[in-house]
Amino acid sequence: MSVLYDHVAFVGLGLIAGSMSLAMRKHGLAGQTVGTARTAQTRQTAREIGLCDRVVDSAAEAVAGADLVVLAVPVGAMGAVAREIAPHLKPGATVTDVGSVKRAVIGAVAPHMPETVHFIPGHPLAGTEHTGPRAGFAELFENRFCLLVPLEGTDRAALQGLRALWEAMGSTVETMDPDHHDLVLAVTSHAPHLIAYTMVGVADDLRRVTDSEVIKYSAAGFRDFTRIAASDPVMWRDVFLNNRDATLEILGRFTEELFALQRAIRTGDGELLHAYFTRTRAIRRGIIEAGQDTAAPDFGRSAKR
Amino acid sequence: MSVLYDHVAFVGLGLIAGSMSLAMRKHGLAGQTVGTARTAQTRQTAREIGLCDRVVDSAAEAVAGADLVVLAVPVGAMGAVAREIAPHLKPGATVTDVGSVKRAVIGAVAPHMPETVHFIPGHPLAGTEHTGPRAGFAELFENRFCLLVPLEGTDRAALQGLRALWEAMGSTVETMDPDHHDLVLAVTSHAPHLIAYTMVGVADDLRRVTDSEVIKYSAAGFRDFTRIAASDPVMWRDVFLNNRDATLEILGRFTEELFALQRAIRTGDGELLHAYFTRTRAIRRGIIEAGQDTAAPDFGRSAKR
Repeated sequence: MSVLYDHVAFVGLGLIAGSMSLAMRKHGLAGQTVGTARTAQTRQTAREIGLCDRVVDSAAEAVAGADLVVLAVPVGAMGAVAREIAPHLKPGATVTDVGSVKRAVIGAVAPHMPETVHFIPGHPLAGTEHTGPRAGFAELFENRFCLLVPLEGTDRAALQGLRALWEAMGSTVETMDPDHHDLVLAVTSHAPHLIAYTMVGVADDLRRVTDSEVIKYSAAGFRDFTRIAASDPVMWRDVFLNNRDATLEILGRFTEELFALQRAIRTGDGELLHAYFTRTRAIRRGIIEAGQDTAAPDFGRSAKR
Repeated sequence: MSVLYDHVAFVGLGLIAGSMSLAMRKHGLAGQTVGTARTAQTRQTAREIGLCDRVVDSAAEAVAGADLVVLAVPVGAMGAVAREIAPHLKPGATVTDVGSVKRAVIGAVAPHMPETVHFIPGHPLAGTEHTGPRAGFAELFENRFCLLVPLEGTDRAALQGLRALWEAMGSTVETMDPDHHDLVLAVTSHAPHLIAYTMVGVADDLRRVTDSEVIKYSAAGFRDFTRIAASDPVMWRDVFLNNRDATLEILGRFTEELFALQRAIRTGDGELLHAYFTRTRAIRRGIIEAGQDTAAPDFGRSAKR
């Protein structure tokens, strides 16, 4: 493919930025990539493994002259980074982010952006439970959605350029407004993560079942929760604090439904349980048909895989 | 390997019995396998794909002359099957089951068992979200635990024989008492399943987010829930109705913890959230070290896999 941005800057060098850098290199999408990270250790690791063409010590230095700036720090750090880089941004540059929450990021970043740059919030729906500069891989975004959340009056050419970049990295791009984005993600990602964290915490607390038993016998169901609950603590703390209302709304609904099912168990209402479980099964089929997962049996993932 | 049982009978021909039959054939563990199922359609399918050496029309016929009888029906059907087969069991035979709940199965099955047979409850911790005679595969039990729950006074040779069978199919066998089994499974499997069912149900109910959005954007977190929530509705209805007390106890603990985390989100207590998420991450590491899963990034499972 052809170069889409001459100079790309990453602020933050974790799983997402690292994967973007590797994907751009693989597909020849950037003239040069420059990255920076808050800690000296992350910068050192990124240099060692050649994650970007250059790794520099400050965000100001990284963004100087960049045509595309990618903010890839935890949601709670976006505002400070935006303020820091603002004076150094090249006129005409596109600034995007990869945060899991959009309304709060827009509120934190947009006020700092000069009129001369195009700020286009984004969110690739891709990730693993691993973090840090060594976690990235070029194929992370393939067959995944990337949601772009353009503000009113966004420059069409700038939007088209960013869309082309994500498509070139293998993603399907859709646009969405920020509040709807935050609600959809509360349902599909934020509430499930909190629930998984909670269940894993309960298991750990239960004195009559040892952690080693929980770990040994986690084949069915629980293991998928632990995978989710192993995600980056800082990132997720910031997600919940910054998508508070939507997450709490979904959790309220969840608790209500859970109480109804608990009551059915207590009263022995097998019909209600059976009907509920039959309905949820259909949603799974929809996901497989939508190509977001395979039908391969996966609960029994072999330790060898 | 060598033949461990001359004649093995399966009552029920779903995922577990089918996988056992295929594993026994693969490793040469049974002289002959005979199976039966409640519905003519399941029996017909099992015949077509040669799941057992013989498929017969009644449980009584299947168990006649069998050295090992495997009860592989939903937990709620165990009692009726036990009553039906009891007069036809061969003296000296071993009868086992594969139910996910043990105290209730023992209560339903043991009273029907003649003194002349060895009833040894069991539970292989293996499965997928698929069901039925076509779902089985010989490798399902490899690197998985199988819990045996012998009653007081169980014949040591019979127990040793059943243990050898599970080990030959690739499992690690441990013994446990029934109440502890039911509590451990409530934590590691039953409560997580109910929670996943609930979350998927909430998503389906929410009118402002369409099912198609839920399905499209389910990359992160939610997809693992849908996988769990696609499990067999009859099996799971019976699990909850038959492991009621332990499941409700764990769900009570879960709700309590969830409320504490919701409160932290509402009040903006980032320290509490961060500490909680850091603790749960350690459990995941324990599971990987215990060899029950791999560290390979799996959230971003490619649709091609």
